[in-house]
Amino acid sequence: MTQALTPGSAIGILGGGQLGRMLALAAARLGLEAHVYCPDPESPAFDVCARATIAPYEDEAALADFAEKVDVVTYEFENVPAHTASILAAHGLVRPGPEALATCQDRLVEKEFLELNGIATAPWARVDDAGALARAVAKIGRRSILKTRRFGYDGKGQVMLREGSDLAVTFRTLGGLPAILEAVVPFEKEVSVVAARGADGTFAPYDVCENVHDNHILKLTRAPARLDAAAAAEAVRMARVIADALDYVGVLAVEMFAVAEGERVRLLVNEIAPRVHNSGHWTLDGALTSQFEQHIRAIAGWPLGATRRHGSTVEMQNLIGDEIHAYHEILREPGACLHIYGKREARPGRKMGHVTRIAYDRDP
Amino acid sequence: MTQALTPGSAIGILGGGQLGRMLALAAARLGLEAHVYCPDPESPAFDVCARATIAPYEDEAALADFAEKVDVVTYEFENVPAHTASILAAHGLVRPGPEALATCQDRLVEKEFLELNGIATAPWARVDDAGALARAVAKIGRRSILKTRRFGYDGKGQVMLREGSDLAVTFRTLGGLPAILEAVVPFEKEVSVVAARGADGTFAPYDVCENVHDNHILKLTRAPARLDAAAAAEAVRMARVIADALDYVGVLAVEMFAVAEGERVRLLVNEIAPRVHNSGHWTLDGALTSQFEQHIRAIAGWPLGATRRHGSTVEMQNLIGDEIHAYHEILREPGACLHIYGKREARPGRKMGHVTRIAYDRDP
Repeated sequence: MTQALTPGSAIGILGGGQLGRMLALAAARLGLEAHVYCPDPESPAFDVCARATIAPYEDEAALADFAEKVDVVTYEFENVPAHTASILAAHGLVRPGPEALATCQDRLVEKEFLELNGIATAPWARVDDAGALARAVAKIGRRSILKTRRFGYDGKGQVMLREGSDLAVTFRTLGGLPAILEAVVPFEKEVSVVAARGADGTFAPYDVCENVHDNHILKLTRAPARLDAAAAAEAVRMARVIADALDYVGVLAVEMFAVAEGERVRLLVNEIAPRVHNSGHWTLDGALTSQFEQHIRAIAGWPLGATRRHGSTVEMQNLIGDEIHAYHEILREPGACLHIYGKREARPGRKMGHVTRIAYDRDP
Repeated sequence: MTQALTPGSAIGILGGGQLGRMLALAAARLGLEAHVYCPDPESPAFDVCARATIAPYEDEAALADFAEKVDVVTYEFENVPAHTASILAAHGLVRPGPEALATCQDRLVEKEFLELNGIATAPWARVDDAGALARAVAKIGRRSILKTRRFGYDGKGQVMLREGSDLAVTFRTLGGLPAILEAVVPFEKEVSVVAARGADGTFAPYDVCENVHDNHILKLTRAPARLDAAAAAEAVRMARVIADALDYVGVLAVEMFAVAEGERVRLLVNEIAPRVHNSGHWTLDGALTSQFEQHIRAIAGWPLGATRRHGSTVEMQNLIGDEIHAYHEILREPGACLHIYGKREARPGRKMGHVTRIAYDRDP
């Protein structure tokens, strides 16, 4: 039974980075109060929320108090410790639900989930020890990446295998943690589907978009992706199968590799992000409803908004580290939409903001 | 000399209603901190700002402290007491500047300013006492409205003259305050120009829009206004003359009556609002840069953004008082963009939110 929130209700957001900040801003547009929970007192989301809790994710009393004071809890990152999630769930509604978290925060569980639901991935194998790594290499080959099952993001927790590398050493490089080995697939492009599933099961995808990474960090997103219509429809279908199978509520992103197979394109799911996603930032300026508002609508038990795109193409560029210092040139650029996240220090690799550029092929 | 703010700077906003709230949200997008000053502890803007000051507008120490802690001060309403404005100006940069405030918060000064700059208005006369009212009526006629010079908004501080009404009684109805008498003009429609002027003098108008009032409160705005191209260009020209003459920095709105004169349309300025304006709310969803972001860019000394409209027409409907209770039907409406201001009580006549509807005459 779906209970819809009323205006004035409180949305609890776990995590105070830029995603939490943009979720809080979206909640405010809809007349909802954002309460942000984050251990870092300098969290950018704290500047835009009605209430802030500064406490470790392990602080059970603070978590319980936070969950009691809000009407629904959501999160900006999938690496919410399972114990944290279960404390929150014991005290109130958590969306997306614990099943989505459990599935997406462990690469092995995620791969098994995808296999079970008939969704193609790159070849992979479970690696619990150095011996298993040797067996995995025998099966998958050396053109592969070893990834820890948990807590990886932006290229952290993974290592590419080399021709002559010692497998025991490689395994220890990642701390000897449970891992999986994934084949490197020669993809044409990386694409993602950002979509929402409502509490009533409705599904609202944005245009499939195409992503360029640099040093494992998203650099550019372009919507719509340059895919043929059949492949784009297949990408959306796969995202829907995933969202339905997880009984998902909220926005999720499914990252895929588009691999050429003769005339057609084959899509392999790389990763599921059970949250708003960097490759959906273009929707803030380039779509009728942003992914952040869409996520808030979904977790509030409200109807989803329209995902219509503005313009013929929309491009989003991340501003990473020092790149933010070009803000004044970007402000001067006709039609560029700039977002700055309010982080105090522009450390290398840190996402400091982004810029959206909408191309039009005609007048309004 | 124009000093541009850097990201992380603090924007002081006087007034914590929905305009202050939407300004604070726009500041956050750009990585600027919003500090809101308002006497009402339940101000909707407090839920989205980095710092809040709850103090009367007459509290000199609080005002000085507020102005010292921010990099620029702006306001959401033109009735800022002159003494308040001068305290703020003594402690830092106030934008739009004191001249715009002084001009726009007194109907007599405003009318004289417009006359001096060759901008047409409805016939008017100064009324300082009952005798002056009799002389004004002799000049302008009974089809006229008596308006206090100061502190009028949403129909407050004004009274329509009747055929047989006793002029001395009418004058006392408004508390015997200094006033002006304005002729009622038989307008075809009410239009407004919402535009920004940058610190460097650049001028960026939005599409002229057309407004429908109900009981003196804005009910509907439609962009673009149904005006011929010459009249629309003339409306924009008039707004620019006004902005330049005030050496204005920020967003302003110029309300006009469009009066049919034979084949052509004559524009008469009704009122200047030296601030973001309700008739510009459509730009949040319906234009590339919202009026709120545009105002923040201007007062930060930053380049102005693009004002391009999305869709063929954009309509904005205010949700006043109980109308907000229809929020769930509006959420269900395909393509409607809903904004709720976070006010706790839906009192009659109170602006509780608005909804934007964009019409498209073709696919993206």
